[in-house]
Amino acid sequence: MSDSKKIDATAGPLTYDDVRSVSPALEYYTRESLLGGLWKRPELSPRDRSIVTVASVIARNQNIEMPVHFALALDNGVRPAELSEIITHLAFYAGWGNAMAAVAVAKDVFHQRSIGIDQLPPAKDKLLPLNEEVEKQRANQVGNNFGAVSPGLVQNTTDFLFRDLWLRPALAPRDRSLVTVSALIANGQTAQITYHLGRAMDNGLTQAQASEVLTHIAFYAGWPCAFSALPVVKDVFERRIAH
Amino acid sequence: MSDSKKIDATAGPLTYDDVRSVSPALEYYTRESLLGGLWKRPELSPRDRSIVTVASVIARNQNIEMPVHFALALDNGVRPAELSEIITHLAFYAGWGNAMAAVAVAKDVFHQRSIGIDQLPPAKDKLLPLNEEVEKQRANQVGNNFGAVSPGLVQNTTDFLFRDLWLRPALAPRDRSLVTVSALIANGQTAQITYHLGRAMDNGLTQAQASEVLTHIAFYAGWPCAFSALPVVKDVFERRIAH
Amino acid sequence: MSDSKKIDATAGPLTYDDVRSVSPALEYYTRESLLGGLWKRPELSPRDRSIVTVASVIARNQNIEMPVHFALALDNGVRPAELSEIITHLAFYAGWGNAMAAVAVAKDVFHQRSIGIDQLPPAKDKLLPLNEEVEKQRANQVGNNFGAVSPGLVQNTTDFLFRDLWLRPALAPRDRSLVTVSALIANGQTAQITYHLGRAMDNGLTQAQASEVLTHIAFYAGWPCAFSALPVVKDVFERRIAH
Repeated sequence: MSDSKKIDATAGPLTYDDVRSVSPALEYYTRESLLGGLWKRPELSPRDRSIVTVASVIARNQNIEMPVHFALALDNGVRPAELSEIITHLAFYAGWGNAMAAVAVAKDVFHQRSIGIDQLPPAKDKLLPLNEEVEKQRANQVGNNFGAVSPGLVQNTTDFLFRDLWLRPALAPRDRSLVTVSALIANGQTAQITYHLGRAMDNGLTQAQASEVLTHIAFYAGWPCAFSALPVVKDVFERRIAH
Repeated sequence: MSDSKKIDATAGPLTYDDVRSVSPALEYYTRESLLGGLWKRPELSPRDRSIVTVASVIARNQNIEMPVHFALALDNGVRPAELSEIITHLAFYAGWGNAMAAVAVAKDVFHQRSIGIDQLPPAKDKLLPLNEEVEKQRANQVGNNFGAVSPGLVQNTTDFLFRDLWLRPALAPRDRSLVTVSALIANGQTAQITYHLGRAMDNGLTQAQASEVLTHIAFYAGWPCAFSALPVVKDVFERRIAH
Repeated sequence: MSDSKKIDATAGPLTYDDVRSVSPALEYYTRESLLGGLWKRPELSPRDRSIVTVASVIARNQNIEMPVHFALALDNGVRPAELSEIITHLAFYAGWGNAMAAVAVAKDVFHQRSIGIDQLPPAKDKLLPLNEEVEKQRANQVGNNFGAVSPGLVQNTTDFLFRDLWLRPALAPRDRSLVTVSALIANGQTAQITYHLGRAMDNGLTQAQASEVLTHIAFYAGWPCAFSALPVVKDVFERRIAH
């Protein structure tokens, strides 16, 4: 492997030589421990690892990592329509500005690969069927707790998220949950993990996969984010066994 | 509206075409749900929405959103002196580096609009009168709790914040509180919301406005930040009614 | 001092004139309160203040502050090998993308000062001796709590952090702890402060120094981060006295 190969293969300026010129150790860990180690663990597919990583770098606004990880995601089997929808999803779950920073990078990645608008999800799409029972329960609980505190937020949560965004077919509910949980862990939003990890597992994320998400995201969001999530994840796992 | 109109009207590279080239849905939500919807809700004035948004994008260091939202704030009636003072305030409440990133953008926005130093608050200004009683209570409580833990921090809090920054006349106390609360929500600093939301309401922010701040900021800081703030805001609202 | 002197002496665009063109007050506070005040307080050496500041700006991804503070750190006696190792350390404690953003700046700072790879820690180095007793206790506690939740994360914590990174000799354990605690405070990771502040004090950080870290970091990470850390720091101080 040429030492001047760009880590950021598409737009960014960093090469392995650059990393070594500041920290030979960081270059070694990146090559050997991450790309040659973590990413090859069988507990999570490369496609899932890319989903977790993309969600984490967008949630934390790590612009410098976006080009390489958007490109790697496409190489790992994340379809352009899915990457597009991950960015749309994170506008709501990590903030509009985080999604716009991702747009600024993704537009170049898409352009370089000649990915046109015909490969992207339409603005308005035929929605997946809604489980009315589950959604009614969710809406009632949130409404009872917070309907008087912020009626606008509670109504928008129903209208924009659970009766629209979550039903868009461009990203499977299980993958959408994986994006959400990854963003919550990466941003230290531990108070929201319980609900969304439960939902993720209802949507098909296995406990072994959720466990490995923590192993993976520790490198990209930092160890403290993973460790702050651990007790919450443990609690979710134990409650599901108890039922 | 031309599709190549820059979302970022002043300095940034993103146009609606750019957003659509990555996510037609995100472009649709931005146009229709945010600019055509959220911003037109009567529960909060466009000027207040701009204050909340500017505080959120600075607090989260969303550089790409700064140019358009600084310009929009000025268009919505935030005076240059107020925008200047919001940035100064956030140096203390979101970190010096966040304020400096805002300076790098605001200097160009100001330059383009020929806003000179004569329109900005002076470094040293005649301070607003201090409510000595209230400040004495605050200082005593913090001093009793934490005076032995970090005497420097406790002293600086009195000297730089409550006997200086908060009394600078370039930003009304109610607006200063709105900036502070917005930054706390946007950074997930829930532990500090109770005090500052109470202060904001003492400074004239109504409960209906505070409620709508959550509705608004969910889009800019992400839903999880708004939801993590909800129980704290609820508690503040209920305690004020109980008194 | 020339008013056009760059605050960011190495690569960034901001001069004092720039800051004043947006906020004369912010320029005043930067010159007088920070550089002329905070940094001269005797409670913490300029070198320690630089370590805290560098950790905070990397942890919060405040790119615009990196050039000036990396350069200032070198001027304040942080050796190139130590700055290199701080960046490596923060890859694990603030996320890979935060470290890579630091690399992009540090490579230019190093280049300008003709700091070559011979001055940097090697990828693989002779490790410091391990206190097996203490490490066994730590590993057992984490393993008992979380070994079943995320075995990969727990194993990596042992292998990458406590039997590798923490034993690399390029950064003294006390300084490594100072970096870690600063990053935790700057990112609002209060749940992880108890363990790492205790470890920092075991590694030689005095209570007076830890106290002043809060005073210092309030400016760079924002007051709310410092105040959210206060009760945790207080608790750590009190428990150590009780023993």
